[in-house]
Amino acid sequence: MSESMTDFARATQEILLAGQRMDARGWVPATAGNISRRLPDGRIAITRSGCHKGFLKAEDVITVNGGGIAHRPGDKPSAETLLHCQIYQQDPTAGAVLHGHSVASTVLSMIEKSPALHLADYEVQKVFEGQTTHEASVPVPLFENDQDIARLAQKVTPFFGTMPAGYIIRGHGVYVWGKDMPTALARLEGLEFLLACLLERRKLGQ
Amino acid sequence: MSESMTDFARATQEILLAGQRMDARGWVPATAGNISRRLPDGRIAITRSGCHKGFLKAEDVITVNGGGIAHRPGDKPSAETLLHCQIYQQDPTAGAVLHGHSVASTVLSMIEKSPALHLADYEVQKVFEGQTTHEASVPVPLFENDQDIARLAQKVTPFFGTMPAGYIIRGHGVYVWGKDMPTALARLEGLEFLLACLLERRKLGQ
Amino acid sequence: MSESMTDFARATQEILLAGQRMDARGWVPATAGNISRRLPDGRIAITRSGCHKGFLKAEDVITVNGGGIAHRPGDKPSAETLLHCQIYQQDPTAGAVLHGHSVASTVLSMIEKSPALHLADYEVQKVFEGQTTHEASVPVPLFENDQDIARLAQKVTPFFGTMPAGYIIRGHGVYVWGKDMPTALARLEGLEFLLACLLERRKLGQ
Amino acid sequence: MSESMTDFARATQEILLAGQRMDARGWVPATAGNISRRLPDGRIAITRSGCHKGFLKAEDVITVNGGGIAHRPGDKPSAETLLHCQIYQQDPTAGAVLHGHSVASTVLSMIEKSPALHLADYEVQKVFEGQTTHEASVPVPLFENDQDIARLAQKVTPFFGTMPAGYIIRGHGVYVWGKDMPTALARLEGLEFLLACLLERRKLGQ
Repeated sequence: MSESMTDFARATQEILLAGQRMDARGWVPATAGNISRRLPDGRIAITRSGCHKGFLKAEDVITVNGGGIAHRPGDKPSAETLLHCQIYQQDPTAGAVLHGHSVASTVLSMIEKSPALHLADYEVQKVFEGQTTHEASVPVPLFENDQDIARLAQKVTPFFGTMPAGYIIRGHGVYVWGKDMPTALARLEGLEFLLACLLERRKLGQ
Repeated sequence: MSESMTDFARATQEILLAGQRMDARGWVPATAGNISRRLPDGRIAITRSGCHKGFLKAEDVITVNGGGIAHRPGDKPSAETLLHCQIYQQDPTAGAVLHGHSVASTVLSMIEKSPALHLADYEVQKVFEGQTTHEASVPVPLFENDQDIARLAQKVTPFFGTMPAGYIIRGHGVYVWGKDMPTALARLEGLEFLLACLLERRKLGQ
Repeated sequence: MSESMTDFARATQEILLAGQRMDARGWVPATAGNISRRLPDGRIAITRSGCHKGFLKAEDVITVNGGGIAHRPGDKPSAETLLHCQIYQQDPTAGAVLHGHSVASTVLSMIEKSPALHLADYEVQKVFEGQTTHEASVPVPLFENDQDIARLAQKVTPFFGTMPAGYIIRGHGVYVWGKDMPTALARLEGLEFLLACLLERRKLGQ
Repeated sequence: MSESMTDFARATQEILLAGQRMDARGWVPATAGNISRRLPDGRIAITRSGCHKGFLKAEDVITVNGGGIAHRPGDKPSAETLLHCQIYQQDPTAGAVLHGHSVASTVLSMIEKSPALHLADYEVQKVFEGQTTHEASVPVPLFENDQDIARLAQKVTPFFGTMPAGYIIRGHGVYVWGKDMPTALARLEGLEFLLACLLERRKLGQ
């Protein structure tokens, strides 16, 4: 990207490409999912409510403050913007947040009754924050879906610092983040790959 | 699209792109499926019989009247054109109709013996008409396939107003619609995503 | 295609595009599969032995006579060229033949011990020669694989005229044909779609 | 490629295209996998540690010597570079090595407790070194994953010459090689296709 692009223009471009990538993988069906990027000045660039993430245009990216309020009157952020804001607030290193809906995360979160999925013995789990070996077990917390996002966020708060692979809302999808967009995308790909493995193993009775 | 395009040219372009999208997802194998758009003057633009929906050319889109009769002598609409006409007649808000054949809809409709599939507890079901929460159950009616399309249409008639996610013909495929093409496509993607989830859950004994 | 293209150049172009399509669907892994087209003068244009069907170049298409002998000394046809020649000989209407290897055809042909798979109650089966309703059962014969292609061909001979959807060699793949390339491709897509449905149904105990 | 390209530039181009191909198939999630090419002068061109294999740039390819030491100070090879070097040392005909992580190889290697998977009766197995018929059984050894790559390599050493389809590290992925990049890619596609078949057959109780 050109040196002279503004931080917002750069973030917008990253968000559009991330949306296309997630769409190619089938992780943002219909108008599901949302994508954000923290700007150096603290503003958050995030996808507008209701658009398809595979076909985003520059005008589909808006900015909100740390409380999820749009800077420009009339811009309508998605209700789930609050979950992005929470991640940026709780993790000062977070620079990008991805929320997607895959078949594997949706199905596994609905059939697993315990409060977390566990990823163990996979080489790919080294992509998650602080992981250096496959000989570990990475928990992925499962939260009940709730149309009251503030109430949902409250349940997530105590888990920050203990979910290196992100978290899943039951019947809804994953939240993954990283210091920048490539890191967040790599973690999302890693998590979705491992959930796909987990789903296949369940079909084989494991 | 350019301001000066005719309504028919616009509709044709939308239909071609929708066909390519459905093909990329594997929902229009062989010459299966059909796609239509209601024009402001009441005519219906619809795919010609027998062509592949992933490789449509402009001349593969024809117009029919509300009774499914082609305006231009020699144009051959598919037999299923009547199901499109029925949707436009029954739902005055419908502006686009999509009919696709996916593995998930085909298989689920053949193994489920009750008269409907039920979608419940999924966030994505909010994409369907009038849905605001995952805490609902959306029925998707299943109709027996019939080569006599008029007779098939009669069985569908009583269900209008009660099938926000569209309907499925057993061993055949889905019918989904919306006020415009992006809405219809988003609903189709939502429905196919949820059917894929349902199929995976059945494999796991649910 | 331009009026002035030779028949061979036209056939080559159709074969290259068919290879790319089959590769995009995952039906020609490694150097598997082969593709041919009968020319108006009776020559058969067919893919050379050993090349990847998703990355064919014009020089990867050669011509053979009805007995499978290359017209140009040094051109090496694949051993399976004889199966293409057999189809053109047995079915005078055949203009294009496709041979692909899919996961579904490979797996189903290895687990089904009876001499045929049966496709019934699917709308898509209307894409096959002479089928006008889903209320029929289309048999797809299964032949044992054999590195002696002439011996394999002999076992196929008696079935011509009774296999509208083509046939399958166990652990190997499908043979499908049609009057021209679009027809052959549509039948291949139809067959693979239905085999994918069959495989899913088997997982569900059907 | 142009005559005047250096061997390293040619190898880099082949590695970038191989990465895009593996990514399109879903075999290099996150920053997983690595790809190398032996140059005529004995140097090994290999992907740098930590980058996404689907989005490689020329500067992501570095050169190492036969012991895995980077020629340019500051270039950081991945720890698994040693496994590539081992293959080039043990098999003088090897010109390209591919390491990918697929769902099928990961899942099968974790559920199979015996020391190898066996591929038998598949036509596609003829793509592997020295195979001329489907009537053979090709073993694919399974090794325990180990973050100590030198120790892992020692366990692989005795198997060279007896693994025509490559090998698998449990919960980690496959290593496949060939005399040049197209051969290595064809073998990788062949192996992944057969592992996908094996996984489907296990779901059906075989």
